Amino acid sequence: MMRFGLLGAGRIGRIHGLNVAARPDTALVAVADASADAAGSLAAATGAMAATAEDILADRAIDAVLVCTPTDTHADLIEQAVSAGKAVFCEKPVDLAAERIRRCLEIVARSGRPLMIGFNRRFDPNFAALEARLRRGEIGAVEMVSVISRDPSPPPVDYVRRSGGLFRDMMIHDFDMARFLLTEEPVEVFAMGAALVDPAIGEAGDVDTAAVVMRTAGGRIAQISNSRRASYGYDQRIEVHGAGGMLRAGNIHETTVESATGAGFRADPVQNFFLERYAAAYRAELDAFVTAVRDGTPPRPSGQDGLKAQMLADAATESWRTGKPVAITAEKT
Amino acid sequence: MMRFGLLGAGRIGRIHGLNVAARPDTALVAVADASADAAGSLAAATGAMAATAEDILADRAIDAVLVCTPTDTHADLIEQAVSAGKAVFCEKPVDLAAERIRRCLEIVARSGRPLMIGFNRRFDPNFAALEARLRRGEIGAVEMVSVISRDPSPPPVDYVRRSGGLFRDMMIHDFDMARFLLTEEPVEVFAMGAALVDPAIGEAGDVDTAAVVMRTAGGRIAQISNSRRASYGYDQRIEVHGAGGMLRAGNIHETTVESATGAGFRADPVQNFFLERYAAAYRAELDAFVTAVRDGTPPRPSGQDGLKAQMLADAATESWRTGKPVAITAEKT
Amino acid sequence: MMRFGLLGAGRIGRIHGLNVAARPDTALVAVADASADAAGSLAAATGAMAATAEDILADRAIDAVLVCTPTDTHADLIEQAVSAGKAVFCEKPVDLAAERIRRCLEIVARSGRPLMIGFNRRFDPNFAALEARLRRGEIGAVEMVSVISRDPSPPPVDYVRRSGGLFRDMMIHDFDMARFLLTEEPVEVFAMGAALVDPAIGEAGDVDTAAVVMRTAGGRIAQISNSRRASYGYDQRIEVHGAGGMLRAGNIHETTVESATGAGFRADPVQNFFLERYAAAYRAELDAFVTAVRDGTPPRPSGQDGLKAQMLADAATESWRTGKPVAITAEKT
Amino acid sequence: MMRFGLLGAGRIGRIHGLNVAARPDTALVAVADASADAAGSLAAATGAMAATAEDILADRAIDAVLVCTPTDTHADLIEQAVSAGKAVFCEKPVDLAAERIRRCLEIVARSGRPLMIGFNRRFDPNFAALEARLRRGEIGAVEMVSVISRDPSPPPVDYVRRSGGLFRDMMIHDFDMARFLLTEEPVEVFAMGAALVDPAIGEAGDVDTAAVVMRTAGGRIAQISNSRRASYGYDQRIEVHGAGGMLRAGNIHETTVESATGAGFRADPVQNFFLERYAAAYRAELDAFVTAVRDGTPPRPSGQDGLKAQMLADAATESWRTGKPVAITAEKT
Repeated sequence: MMRFGLLGAGRIGRIHGLNVAARPDTALVAVADASADAAGSLAAATGAMAATAEDILADRAIDAVLVCTPTDTHADLIEQAVSAGKAVFCEKPVDLAAERIRRCLEIVARSGRPLMIGFNRRFDPNFAALEARLRRGEIGAVEMVSVISRDPSPPPVDYVRRSGGLFRDMMIHDFDMARFLLTEEPVEVFAMGAALVDPAIGEAGDVDTAAVVMRTAGGRIAQISNSRRASYGYDQRIEVHGAGGMLRAGNIHETTVESATGAGFRADPVQNFFLERYAAAYRAELDAFVTAVRDGTPPRPSGQDGLKAQMLADAATESWRTGKPVAITAEKT
Repeated sequence: MMRFGLLGAGRIGRIHGLNVAARPDTALVAVADASADAAGSLAAATGAMAATAEDILADRAIDAVLVCTPTDTHADLIEQAVSAGKAVFCEKPVDLAAERIRRCLEIVARSGRPLMIGFNRRFDPNFAALEARLRRGEIGAVEMVSVISRDPSPPPVDYVRRSGGLFRDMMIHDFDMARFLLTEEPVEVFAMGAALVDPAIGEAGDVDTAAVVMRTAGGRIAQISNSRRASYGYDQRIEVHGAGGMLRAGNIHETTVESATGAGFRADPVQNFFLERYAAAYRAELDAFVTAVRDGTPPRPSGQDGLKAQMLADAATESWRTGKPVAITAEKT
Repeated sequence: MMRFGLLGAGRIGRIHGLNVAARPDTALVAVADASADAAGSLAAATGAMAATAEDILADRAIDAVLVCTPTDTHADLIEQAVSAGKAVFCEKPVDLAAERIRRCLEIVARSGRPLMIGFNRRFDPNFAALEARLRRGEIGAVEMVSVISRDPSPPPVDYVRRSGGLFRDMMIHDFDMARFLLTEEPVEVFAMGAALVDPAIGEAGDVDTAAVVMRTAGGRIAQISNSRRASYGYDQRIEVHGAGGMLRAGNIHETTVESATGAGFRADPVQNFFLERYAAAYRAELDAFVTAVRDGTPPRPSGQDGLKAQMLADAATESWRTGKPVAITAEKT
Repeated sequence: MMRFGLLGAGRIGRIHGLNVAARPDTALVAVADASADAAGSLAAATGAMAATAEDILADRAIDAVLVCTPTDTHADLIEQAVSAGKAVFCEKPVDLAAERIRRCLEIVARSGRPLMIGFNRRFDPNFAALEARLRRGEIGAVEMVSVISRDPSPPPVDYVRRSGGLFRDMMIHDFDMARFLLTEEPVEVFAMGAALVDPAIGEAGDVDTAAVVMRTAGGRIAQISNSRRASYGYDQRIEVHGAGGMLRAGNIHETTVESATGAGFRADPVQNFFLERYAAAYRAELDAFVTAVRDGTPPRPSGQDGLKAQMLADAATESWRTGKPVAITAEKT
């Protein structure tokens, strides 16, 4: 039985906490949150106790810590947790500053404790199956990776202001997915973006519509496009073109019902909410963490994966601001 | 150059006439129609001459005759044409009475001239490809054949009255398709039907909605369902389930455009008109006729195919009227 | 908190027991099974106690009973449970003999206790959504209902022998679905069937491939086709054609991944196992039962629904044996 | 009757010539080609006479000229033809040098004669329907246009060498399509490319795999990706995301047949050949030209459309060579 403490019982923390409680081989023993209500309600639902972060980190009986607090606390909590001997699962990103991530990862490395970063999409059964078939060589060498992500609706401008911007807040998932599929590191990034959905997002210094192209040293290309709004649901698609063909994976419609009338054939919108769309991914992600910790293998996505996605997001942000392509230099990684 | 005379320049005769004129290896030399306008306009468009049926049958320079006149003239014209030494392509059906068809086929047999019946759907590229893959054993032995046919809208009641009824007028195509795919002859037919689309069709003694089940001696089953009306286009689908899997072929949407909005994903209606849906089938059907005549091989669908489909339509009509299953006895065929 | 006892902890009983235990407003308090291991393992997993059926029926603190035992015990247990004041959820069928079902339903009626029959497919989110849209009039009056059910692979012949035959064991779900969608009672049934998948099934006096047509007094038609084997997964489809168009609902592929190579475009097989395909349906079914019991409304599908589906299955069996259509007379219902 | 002369009877010239001959309101009167065989065979098939370009341009009875000769002759022939009073349809591009196109268009403008450029994809029924629905506001303001084009297989390296490069030879169609859909002119272009399909293409100084992003002054973004090879057919897709949803149009499978086996569901490859995929587009394109000439309205795509697509192709080529984004300045247009 692996014993977990949860730091942060917000929307995503609650998901992970419930998933830990639902497994036969893991237990959620303690929950900490700045809101006593949030911690208490999740504790009551799972049989855990409400506690402080300090208590959790100090509790020798706790094997693993889930870091689901606000982004600006991630790096500190990771450092404290690995120093306390815990295995750590941390929601993305480690930090908005690559330099801070690097320092944190050094401490993690010295601790010898495992750290996994929560890029949940790698664990979506559809995307994971696509990647596995790619690895098996089903379409030969990868040539072009295309990722489309569109959120159902834009976040509040207040959130936008402290989010680090679309490239770091939203597209970071797509940077990770592109790296996951390219099998070579991108060496150059070029970004375009605009505030077409909500002018207030533009006034806040951010974009809500963006496209990025990247290339690897071997010439492979990735295209990413993002929108903060899609009327027809939460749009999440990937397509990989290779020497032998194409693999793609897409959205899940709310039902399989189709109507046919004089207006044509109509299918449902796609699932609208990321917690619904990625419910299976969150369970599989936890399973991968538990397995890696138990087997003593390095969990993936690693802290380095978190750093590299952040560097791509930083580069895209810089490219968008300067209007120039940005190189990802070898010494940076 | 194979020289054709056309008897009947109505909607379907015009299609065949234009297709003959468009081929480099066939010529439409004469067109006969009760309406001098219909004959004249098609003759003008193709370089053929307007003529009488008698002239066409008597013209030694004409190799082949297309019979596209009203149903009640088919058998007589076939007999006259083969007796005059012509190869004959006749639109379905040979006659509404199986006994008349039998007599006609005896005369055809004695003449030694080729006769092909216009079951165009066998030549639809989709259905033909399905059948070819079935023959190659892609899904093993056939177990269940399902055919769905829905017309865009019901014919005028006047037409219904002299049509021979839905089973002979509309479902006859599906009987031929079921035979084509079952690869064994049906030995029993059961039919249900009702006038749900238009009560006037019921008052005229016919149905507009019907379902048939048939079985072969080997236990294979075919299901057919028909409706005289479909709001979303001309619905023509077949599905074959076999020991190793399923093959199906379906409709063609008007365009490949798909929209996605808050109301869901929307595709176009399917092609709405049989001349559009089966345009390629009519060309392929003519090609099969020309090839068979030139090569001296028996054209398919044969007169016997026409007779057997008619017997199934007769049996279904009887089953619907009596409420009992009807056997197709071996001596009948 | 509604307190449940479970009678029968086999494959389907286990599903229902776990679903009861997972809800915040229901508790699984006791589990009985002829196999002490089965009862004990589920009790351990859910915090229930292992008990005998007699204990459960005698326990005043138990509000509701789930009957998931072998079919031949259903009617007795329903009678005992309602007589003991329990609300009862019983897996289909109540009994293989319609007469026995009638007697049982009389006792249920006199008890005033609620009885719900486990026709789970009504609760499949796709089929339920289709039915709701049908009720809202999206395609007007129903004209033709088509149901296709194909199991991934045939059951052992031993199971077949005591199953009551394909029409009662497998197609009964489709009879319920057809009734659910037709909105009128079938008045006549005609069946064809054969043992094409496994000759041993034929030797056991049953079929593995079958087609049924039914009609209602108003002329609406239902077509059902069944196969005990489908190489490509568990195939469960419904299509309803109405005055204004068509509604259909289908299968769920294992993933959304699609490949494109020189061999064409390839999508995954459909979900292969009924517990996976209908997992959401089982949860929704339990929810409907809990809600009905709590609100004092009659649960649906009712015992009468169970009886009527059984009568259609009996009629289909008779039709297949005699080769004649079988009327469902009003006095029988 | 509009009388046409055809300059160039190669693959594409032959298509246009046959389409002219097949219309009731146009006649192909003369065909010129450097190869007497090519000219003669098309002349024989259409009833036209073989002639020289000079004869055709001098023939007062010829109303319109189709320019389907090698690219380096287009501008000269356009100038001569409009100066001779002909209406001109010219295959893309007018020239590989924007400056030459500008000079040519000035002469065309002074002549007052109509010139249409053969960007056939605008006339594909699917893409045209998408564009019409976009214009009707079905998804609101355009935000992101995505175009995917993949050829079935790369051209010979000899062709590549004199093609002007992928951006001018292949992607030019996509630049035109992007302009057609964006409804604002791109002001900046960034390109990445590599020779991943065939190293010999790289040695010839070109790429076979490329991605471009462009933006308009209003912030709208277009993404284009190209590959010179696709194992699964000729892949031609567009997707437009707007304020109110998405519109997309795609490929046409060879047939509608689908199989389902243990290996999954399989559909045909998509149509493999541009003359097949765009057969309807070529007919519609000719129709648009004939209509515009007859009605005296300016044909579209115009010479300016040809120039602007060429400028985008030039900018993409420069961007790929320099690694920098390239602005499309207002004075250039």
